[in-house]
Amino acid sequence: MKRIAFFPGTFDPFTKGHEDIALRGAQLFDEIIIGIGHNSKKKRFFPAEKMKDLIEEHFSDNPQIKVILYQDLTAKVAKDLGAHVLLRGLRNTTDFEYENSIAQANRHINGLDTIFIYTSPEYSHLSSSIIRELHKFGHDVGEFVPFELKNDEE
Amino acid sequence: MKRIAFFPGTFDPFTKGHEDIALRGAQLFDEIIIGIGHNSKKKRFFPAEKMKDLIEEHFSDNPQIKVILYQDLTAKVAKDLGAHVLLRGLRNTTDFEYENSIAQANRHINGLDTIFIYTSPEYSHLSSSIIRELHKFGHDVGEFVPFELKNDEE
Amino acid sequence: MKRIAFFPGTFDPFTKGHEDIALRGAQLFDEIIIGIGHNSKKKRFFPAEKMKDLIEEHFSDNPQIKVILYQDLTAKVAKDLGAHVLLRGLRNTTDFEYENSIAQANRHINGLDTIFIYTSPEYSHLSSSIIRELHKFGHDVGEFVPFELKNDEE
Amino acid sequence: MKRIAFFPGTFDPFTKGHEDIALRGAQLFDEIIIGIGHNSKKKRFFPAEKMKDLIEEHFSDNPQIKVILYQDLTAKVAKDLGAHVLLRGLRNTTDFEYENSIAQANRHINGLDTIFIYTSPEYSHLSSSIIRELHKFGHDVGEFVPFELKNDEE
Amino acid sequence: MKRIAFFPGTFDPFTKGHEDIALRGAQLFDEIIIGIGHNSKKKRFFPAEKMKDLIEEHFSDNPQIKVILYQDLTAKVAKDLGAHVLLRGLRNTTDFEYENSIAQANRHINGLDTIFIYTSPEYSHLSSSIIRELHKFGHDVGEFVPFELKNDEE
Amino acid sequence: MKRIAFFPGTFDPFTKGHEDIALRGAQLFDEIIIGIGHNSKKKRFFPAEKMKDLIEEHFSDNPQIKVILYQDLTAKVAKDLGAHVLLRGLRNTTDFEYENSIAQANRHINGLDTIFIYTSPEYSHLSSSIIRELHKFGHDVGEFVPFELKNDEE
Repeated sequence: MKRIAFFPGTFDPFTKGHEDIALRGAQLFDEIIIGIGHNSKKKRFFPAEKMKDLIEEHFSDNPQIKVILYQDLTAKVAKDLGAHVLLRGLRNTTDFEYENSIAQANRHINGLDTIFIYTSPEYSHLSSSIIRELHKFGHDVGEFVPFELKNDEE
Repeated sequence: MKRIAFFPGTFDPFTKGHEDIALRGAQLFDEIIIGIGHNSKKKRFFPAEKMKDLIEEHFSDNPQIKVILYQDLTAKVAKDLGAHVLLRGLRNTTDFEYENSIAQANRHINGLDTIFIYTSPEYSHLSSSIIRELHKFGHDVGEFVPFELKNDEE
Repeated sequence: MKRIAFFPGTFDPFTKGHEDIALRGAQLFDEIIIGIGHNSKKKRFFPAEKMKDLIEEHFSDNPQIKVILYQDLTAKVAKDLGAHVLLRGLRNTTDFEYENSIAQANRHINGLDTIFIYTSPEYSHLSSSIIRELHKFGHDVGEFVPFELKNDEE
Repeated sequence: MKRIAFFPGTFDPFTKGHEDIALRGAQLFDEIIIGIGHNSKKKRFFPAEKMKDLIEEHFSDNPQIKVILYQDLTAKVAKDLGAHVLLRGLRNTTDFEYENSIAQANRHINGLDTIFIYTSPEYSHLSSSIIRELHKFGHDVGEFVPFELKNDEE
Repeated sequence: MKRIAFFPGTFDPFTKGHEDIALRGAQLFDEIIIGIGHNSKKKRFFPAEKMKDLIEEHFSDNPQIKVILYQDLTAKVAKDLGAHVLLRGLRNTTDFEYENSIAQANRHINGLDTIFIYTSPEYSHLSSSIIRELHKFGHDVGEFVPFELKNDEE
Repeated sequence: MKRIAFFPGTFDPFTKGHEDIALRGAQLFDEIIIGIGHNSKKKRFFPAEKMKDLIEEHFSDNPQIKVILYQDLTAKVAKDLGAHVLLRGLRNTTDFEYENSIAQANRHINGLDTIFIYTSPEYSHLSSSIIRELHKFGHDVGEFVPFELKNDEE
């Protein structure tokens, strides 16, 4: 049986912390599907389609890791994709409590469980919002993101 | 490839919260090995050997779940058993920070990662220490433990 | 002396977790006044007037529990109603710190103290924001709310 | 109906933070029974009997506040005393999670609920263990304790 | 060598908690520069220029404390001012995790470290957002702010 | 004026996390005095005198960093040494709340403030107790400690 883990997020942008979770997840499951949740009402900083292309290109040599865009309920999308489990990273106790509520709700919806991996220490202070802030001020964020974010993306 | 998760703990006693983690883990991996860590210096309330028998008997119909006793370093034992990952439950933020340090240390020792599942809400307030306290005062703890704890165990 | 507890909140929507706090509060005080705080600037998902009707109807057999709408400072409203204490539920440590600041401020304003009850474990992962999210995606939220939320409410 | 709140603790020693909770509790309930839990095996720094006398003397003008010693299960003792609720102070998130487990267990045992009050900010950093530490080193702890602790108590 | 600490914040408004951090910081460093970060897009409740004037006037007798307005990246501004360190207050664990991410990012940008002081207990529940809320409802906030906030400021 | 920071701890053993705090503190103050608190009643794993020698030798090229042993109240010792401030590292929210109580007590005793630095991410999961555990099981702890811990130390 092929075991699939669905790794949902906003990924605005996808960081080295997210890459860390995806790669470690790929050692535990047969396939990792990175799902970029977006909706037309919530404005993003980095366009979802562009981010999907960057992540896909980054993992082009790793057949275990796939990327999709989605707009529906996370638990429903994961189930439709045949996922056995949701995968999320935990950086700190603020993440912990937020993720707890989401995980219990997802499990309630269609029985899909979530497993968590602690973010590696060197990435545990990374957050997409801080990276967006640095990027806005023209600061190079190459050290925080696994691929180049070009200026024309905005 | 058979995927094995090692679920270490003191289990003094094994609670319905632990049972919850073991059963949900068994839906994600091929085999769950429950490891009762003990050492001759630290006094237990419920003897380790007896606890092993109770857990084994409880899961006797579930060939995916095994139980062992161990005295060595958790990460070393797990590796020797061919485990691919460590499995632990998270109840609250106090657990979170304690487990974080342990997980990073285990990963450092021999590259073994730990995955976490949130304890189901109805068991998230259970702790072995409170159960021991209730048991000491002669209170029935049957609602908290998945099998009967006889008085002669102490 | 009749002891009145004021239970303030946004209640957008009122959940089974809120119901749990109101009912347990009613065992400790003579009267529980549920106060739906709203203001014309902040857009709600479920209209405040409609929510008031639903809660009132739900507790119509319980003369201890009343419901009001209010737009003023919580501590002032509670005092004007003759309340002896504010009542709030605590689900997790994020709630804890937020509520702490609010409680100290309320006490400072007019000496009104706040008491807290832990949300029952089975409801501790419920949040109005997750319920709104599920409802938006057309998911049935009947398990999380003590009464039916009709579609025409939005 | 007379409403009684049982305020359990080790009180080794009783601090100004505890006094704060007892006095504020007395504004919400008809009677506050301070229960000093002790057992012959756990060594105390300040003898339980002496502490009981000091607290009783301190509140001798307040007929709402009583003090008892007890050795049994907290929830059982409270029920036997006719208490309607348990009362505890919360200082920080570490307290929060510890008290949560205890409160859920007590409620499970005989349906007795626990209400919490935030410790007043000026006492939120006080802990009996720090006071014991200061006292051991001969430091005057008069500012932290509502009555004089004589040296011959040890 | 003159040691300068940069104390950045939104200060909308500057509270007695902020004053506490600035004064205690002035006992540890030669100069404290309070930096009011603002940008034209984010709407403030109390105008930044007015707040700068109020803080400056408040500390006019203390030559160690200066105030500036800034719109750039905090770490860059601090470096340009010749600061040796960033200074921030910590009230609770929510602050802790937020500040941790920011501090690591700032250190990454140009090697500038951040030191933290715990807010004095009597101010640890103060937050600018609660003060704005009270002010909106016409409540006097004089106890929470070290100077008078006139109505015409809005 | 020479500014001295006192860095107290048990240091059983001194870790790379402690080294990180000492070195970063030395960039902010003129002198860092590492104080190994010990007392004859509490058994250590690594003898205090030996630990002092190891730390001293490790920092022998850094005239800003000194090491002492002490048995008295921390705040008193620091004051006697002419320290202007206490220095401590913060790894996580559990540290935060523990340190908060200690810091407020120390400030109360003789007005000595404590400043905190976040432990660098790569060391934030390190704890002396985990290192002792690894060492007991014969695991090499060289990666966690800035100098060699010989077997004959125990």
